[in-house]
Amino acid sequence: MRTRPLKVALLGCGVVGSEVTRIMTTHADDLAQRIGAPVELAGVAVRRPSKVREGIDPSLVTTDATALVKRGDIDVVVEVIGGIEPARSLITTAFEHGASVVSANKALLAQDGAALHAAAEEHGRDLYYEAAVAGAIPLIRPLRESLAGDKVNRVLGIVNGTTNFILDKMDSTGAGYQEALDEATALGYAEADPTADVEGFDAAAKAAILAGIAFHTRVRLDDVYREGMAEVTAADFRSAKEMGCTIKLLAICERAADGESVTARVHPAMIPLTHPLASVRGAYNAVFVESDAAGQLMFYGPGAGGAPTASAVLGDLVAVCRNRLNGATGPGESSYAALPVSPMGEVVTRYHISLDVADKPGVLAQVATVFAEHGVSIDTVRQQGKDGEASLVVVTHRASDASLTGTVEALRKLDTVRGVASIMRVEGE
Amino acid sequence: MRTRPLKVALLGCGVVGSEVTRIMTTHADDLAQRIGAPVELAGVAVRRPSKVREGIDPSLVTTDATALVKRGDIDVVVEVIGGIEPARSLITTAFEHGASVVSANKALLAQDGAALHAAAEEHGRDLYYEAAVAGAIPLIRPLRESLAGDKVNRVLGIVNGTTNFILDKMDSTGAGYQEALDEATALGYAEADPTADVEGFDAAAKAAILAGIAFHTRVRLDDVYREGMAEVTAADFRSAKEMGCTIKLLAICERAADGESVTARVHPAMIPLTHPLASVRGAYNAVFVESDAAGQLMFYGPGAGGAPTASAVLGDLVAVCRNRLNGATGPGESSYAALPVSPMGEVVTRYHISLDVADKPGVLAQVATVFAEHGVSIDTVRQQGKDGEASLVVVTHRASDASLTGTVEALRKLDTVRGVASIMRVEGE
Ligand SMILES: NC(=O)c1ccc[n+]([C@@H]2O[C@H](COP(=O)([O-])OP(=O)(O)OC[C@H]3O[C@@H](n4cnc5c(N)ncnc54)[C@H](OP(=O)(O)O)[C@@H]3O)[C@@H](O)[C@H]2O)c1
Ligand SMILES: NC(=O)c1ccc[n+]([C@@H]2O[C@H](COP(=O)([O-])OP(=O)(O)OC[C@H]3O[C@@H](n4cnc5c(N)ncnc54)[C@H](OP(=O)(O)O)[C@@H]3O)[C@@H](O)[C@H]2O)c1
Repeated sequence: MRTRPLKVALLGCGVVGSEVTRIMTTHADDLAQRIGAPVELAGVAVRRPSKVREGIDPSLVTTDATALVKRGDIDVVVEVIGGIEPARSLITTAFEHGASVVSANKALLAQDGAALHAAAEEHGRDLYYEAAVAGAIPLIRPLRESLAGDKVNRVLGIVNGTTNFILDKMDSTGAGYQEALDEATALGYAEADPTADVEGFDAAAKAAILAGIAFHTRVRLDDVYREGMAEVTAADFRSAKEMGCTIKLLAICERAADGESVTARVHPAMIPLTHPLASVRGAYNAVFVESDAAGQLMFYGPGAGGAPTASAVLGDLVAVCRNRLNGATGPGESSYAALPVSPMGEVVTRYHISLDVADKPGVLAQVATVFAEHGVSIDTVRQQGKDGEASLVVVTHRASDASLTGTVEALRKLDTVRGVASIMRVEGE
Repeated sequence: MRTRPLKVALLGCGVVGSEVTRIMTTHADDLAQRIGAPVELAGVAVRRPSKVREGIDPSLVTTDATALVKRGDIDVVVEVIGGIEPARSLITTAFEHGASVVSANKALLAQDGAALHAAAEEHGRDLYYEAAVAGAIPLIRPLRESLAGDKVNRVLGIVNGTTNFILDKMDSTGAGYQEALDEATALGYAEADPTADVEGFDAAAKAAILAGIAFHTRVRLDDVYREGMAEVTAADFRSAKEMGCTIKLLAICERAADGESVTARVHPAMIPLTHPLASVRGAYNAVFVESDAAGQLMFYGPGAGGAPTASAVLGDLVAVCRNRLNGATGPGESSYAALPVSPMGEVVTRYHISLDVADKPGVLAQVATVFAEHGVSIDTVRQQGKDGEASLVVVTHRASDASLTGTVEALRKLDTVRGVASIMRVEGE
């Protein structure tokens, strides 16, 4: 074993960073054995230098992150600040000064992954980010390495713990969205400003990263269709139950049937209770991967939290350090397939539509005609009426999102349709 | 991209090997892109050279596997023959002649993993074997790489599809063991000689491999306690149901509470229906991994079959080829922790024991005294009697296997105990 230590600079020492330093200290001997050389914490960049940080030598703490990554003797920079800037500039500077980088920053990777990978490659360094998607769950490495000899057709998963906690609450207690969100906030599962989670921005960033790796194609955050979960109601859950389903916020990355294009999207969807994702409770994450040869694989575990995320960061740190000692780099960006990313209109799936209609004869016939005219074939219809008001619940066969949108527009124009109470996609069948 | 191809020698072209060649052919362009150089099938060693093998150039086929691995121009040898010899000698010879090796051979790795790893290291080559455990499910790589910065405490899994199929049948239909086995054989899930599966040898080999990697400790096949599933009865399933449990054949690798020793075992066990492993159906495999920082992770998928296993082989092939182009090797054996492997007697778990007893007053007191004398604390007792015969069902708190064995020996000596109908461990709580 080499005795000269590898030097690690930590950028950020919050929820994740503090756990990274804790494990680096308590597991120092194991890390050294697994890497083949000791690792030394060479500096810790933070915003508030005077904050007491347990177990960290105060002389290592600095507010000058740029100077730290420019030192030139740093082997690996661990970026756990989050956000776009200064994280992006710091990572680029780190590569320029000879360091490899481990990051947990999904927002940055989803937005600027291609440029960062290019910088890493230009300088012959590694960029690893297992922790950016689904916390502790090994997902990037299995997709990038274990399935490197296979053809992935679909990635379908629950990749945001906050929204899963909220939906699980609504499902199990019958609570409405706001009530469940308040509970999630009180218990620390949701942040004070929950926008990134509930509006699906966080999941969309992860979908972009997963789709890029799964399909060997650059998928930018803007390519991901995104619908949040704030519109999901207790009534939707009752409809889902009647169909033997529950509702989850899913990230779905798919290769088109002809294999020539891909799509990536995040939205709430009904899935059958028999689907393994249906039983993913609380803040847990789980991701289904379907490939030609391997078939269906599922990966399940804690999608966030300081220690689980640090576990993923440290796995990457060990790999990057080993590569460094080997004078090699791990697999970089793989975007050779360069498949077009199709817009949401081309996504094909099933739909559950609730309509408020006039309770008089001929309404069903009118509605059915609209569906038929738009090429959307109906699987089941359920009609419920009372006091001149009625509701129609239509579940379709597979149809394109564009056809469904056309159908709904036409339905809204019918005199007999008072309103479209809800539209929800049905997945996982 | 390098244009000169990497040369691959395939040893064995049966269920797995034929799928490896099929994917190598159909995905040749993708593999070249992902590796950075084309891969060429340089030779295929089989037993029966005259057998027609679809898609394989007959001029590549040979019965002289030794000559093939000695050619000197082979970059990677893929061993999918199975069994100990000639596979072991061929792998060693391959290293001696400069090739890296990908294998799916759990029996060989469990028995001689240490020697094979040493040979790989001596010659600066890779030995990869993701396919040896749980087919397509990425498990070796996540344990060895993703969790390299974490401390694994427990691996608990269903790693044999044949036995899971049989137990699932017994559970869902109430069938006896023989009836379920016959169905598994008729459907091709069990081999003509099912010994390796039903007696737990296959699962024990996988447990040895998993424990070795998880605990950075050499665990030999002989270190694994093994109990088959042929004794599991329909009555056991009824008892399990009464407890809200089902029965699975589990491979369990554990670090002792003090962290200073490990155990590895394979046996049928009751697990609560609420445990995610309880809902693993048919021939699927699933493995739970518990670690300090990551918490509980689960990996699920097809544990066998030609295409899924080939997917894992090809993932390794890509990794080994990349290493080769980098002039590097991946992580080798990690056995630095060298923890002692404790015997079964030191395993601590819970037990479900059914006793046939005389239906007279005082029996329960006698039985309870025996448990107490051996330090095994009782959680629940259920007593059922009719016509002078009675049964006692005891579920214990956690106790060592040695204490339980002592308890059962003493119980057998009681006049009032007519027989011990069944003893089953209770896991996953
Ligand atoms: N938390 C999770 O469960 C989780 C899960 C997966 C991925 N991630 C990702 O991990 C990253 C970090 O998340 P976190 O939860 O640990 O965040 P956090 O608790 O807010 O910590 C951020 C850290 O960065 C420091 N910092 C902020 N701006 C800085 C600047 N300009 N220069 C230097 N340091 C600066 C902060 O310093 P002070 O300590 O002085 O404020 C703090 O130590 C994010 O990319 C996040 O998306 C987090
Ligand atoms: N099948 C699965 O689902 C699965 C799953 C995981 C792991 N594995 C592992 O994968 C390996 C292969 O399994 P398999 O199911 O593919 O076995 P298989 O169908 O029996 O194929 C064995 C192959 O090896 C060839 N062979 C046998 N003895 C040989 C010798 N002395 N020299 C050269 N070739 C020889 C056979 O040649 P002929 O074709 O001429 O008979 C055949 O092509 C085993 O280690 C197994 O444990 C299998």
